[in-house]
Amino acid sequence: MDPLKKFVQQDHFARHIGVELLEFGGGRARARMAIGKHHMNSAGTVHGGAIFSLADAVFSVASNSHGTLAMAINVSISFFKAVAGGTLVAEAEEISLNPRLATYLVTVKDEDGNRIALFQGTVYRKKDSIGDIVSS
Amino acid sequence: MDPLKKFVQQDHFARHIGVELLEFGGGRARARMAIGKHHMNSAGTVHGGAIFSLADAVFSVASNSHGTLAMAINVSISFFKAVAGGTLVAEAEEISLNPRLATYLVTVKDEDGNRIALFQGTVYRKKDSIGDIVSS
Amino acid sequence: MDPLKKFVQQDHFARHIGVELLEFGGGRARARMAIGKHHMNSAGTVHGGAIFSLADAVFSVASNSHGTLAMAINVSISFFKAVAGGTLVAEAEEISLNPRLATYLVTVKDEDGNRIALFQGTVYRKKDSIGDIVSS
Amino acid sequence: MDPLKKFVQQDHFARHIGVELLEFGGGRARARMAIGKHHMNSAGTVHGGAIFSLADAVFSVASNSHGTLAMAINVSISFFKAVAGGTLVAEAEEISLNPRLATYLVTVKDEDGNRIALFQGTVYRKKDSIGDIVSS
Repeated sequence: MDPLKKFVQQDHFARHIGVELLEFGGGRARARMAIGKHHMNSAGTVHGGAIFSLADAVFSVASNSHGTLAMAINVSISFFKAVAGGTLVAEAEEISLNPRLATYLVTVKDEDGNRIALFQGTVYRKKDSIGDIVSS
Repeated sequence: MDPLKKFVQQDHFARHIGVELLEFGGGRARARMAIGKHHMNSAGTVHGGAIFSLADAVFSVASNSHGTLAMAINVSISFFKAVAGGTLVAEAEEISLNPRLATYLVTVKDEDGNRIALFQGTVYRKKDSIGDIVSS
Repeated sequence: MDPLKKFVQQDHFARHIGVELLEFGGGRARARMAIGKHHMNSAGTVHGGAIFSLADAVFSVASNSHGTLAMAINVSISFFKAVAGGTLVAEAEEISLNPRLATYLVTVKDEDGNRIALFQGTVYRKKDSIGDIVSS
Repeated sequence: MDPLKKFVQQDHFARHIGVELLEFGGGRARARMAIGKHHMNSAGTVHGGAIFSLADAVFSVASNSHGTLAMAINVSISFFKAVAGGTLVAEAEEISLNPRLATYLVTVKDEDGNRIALFQGTVYRKKDSIGDIVSS
């Protein structure tokens, strides 16, 4: 199997919270998450941690899509709008790519296409190939 | 029941990912999360989304501890160290408190007391009491 | 004189560091800064504070372009590339606009059009008009 | 002369905006800036860029105090309070130190000791010694 596909399937936390990857490759990734009761915070809207985790999942896939293991070192996220249900979609794009460092911008939208969060994340790359990471 | 206690118990996402609140009140909160397989990312370490969500849970409790509903508007998080297991502890402290805006610093540590992440978050407060939010 | 124009001209710090506003209005702004020796850091490249300040200047103009006084509450900036000279250009676009809160994304490029920094900032708006602020 | 001292003196931008270094070494630094008219924004308070630049100056000195050239890759800053004058003091402390990456927290206070901003910054270190950077 393609190492990147295998790598993606090993993301237990993304699966635990219901992230479904739609497409990825070449520094990009897109995923969705259908909101359920287990995503809710105390105020009855989707938890910031759930929105962050959806965005973080596409950030991870996009940044690892070049085949070298990338680790998140810093993320900033702004939340624009509370959401109470439906399906969220997150899309990551590569803003800057250096040998060791790269930065991605992830937009999270609700079902009606309204931006609900903007996520800016930076990764650091060692020299490990993700092929060494995926269990054979 | 105390409205803040009830408010905290309504955090479905925090429960879904295994956050256990240890103490809270007066702009502070502390919680722990025992790491399991469902917290892991593709590289076999704890997912950034899981670490963020633990930190976000204490940020939420600390910022709502004054009794007025607080909504996260911006968060920045730095990750220092990959963790593969054990129990993580997050602690939130209030750095600035204005009528409408407040900022919190959350430190996440591993079992040995090493800092693994630093989270800086800002909330906006409307005039809603959390007593109006908790279901009776 | 147009209150926004007058408001912009009152930005002493932007002038002190050599920011030249190119265009603004409708939640957007663009400016340039010709790099001189006084922008340099200890390593002989443009100081992060100088790059931030250029970005902050267009962020301020874009967020105040609706006529209501906007105050920066949070900014995150990523630096991609050291620059040693030439003219930098910063452009702000409005990502989210709520009655009280708004978020802007500012891209800073070097003379060759390479992105050197990405700046994401959030403002809070009171009800003061910028017309009340500009000295008559 | 001590390479770090020489390195610090070469910070033209810090000098241009009036940053005065008070002490530094061992991953820490402290500086002050006496507010003048040239630090003001359009609203008549200290410009966010000026506050950031003061914080960035101590961040730079603290992160370079180990003798290996450190470059800022990401910074997040929260502003708590508008200031109209007096002297600001910024203090940087080292939160995390890895061979390649390190994170610092900088607190900026006004004359009365009130926190006016909190700055969290991460650097990346190549292998260059700052001794190679300072002009002989």
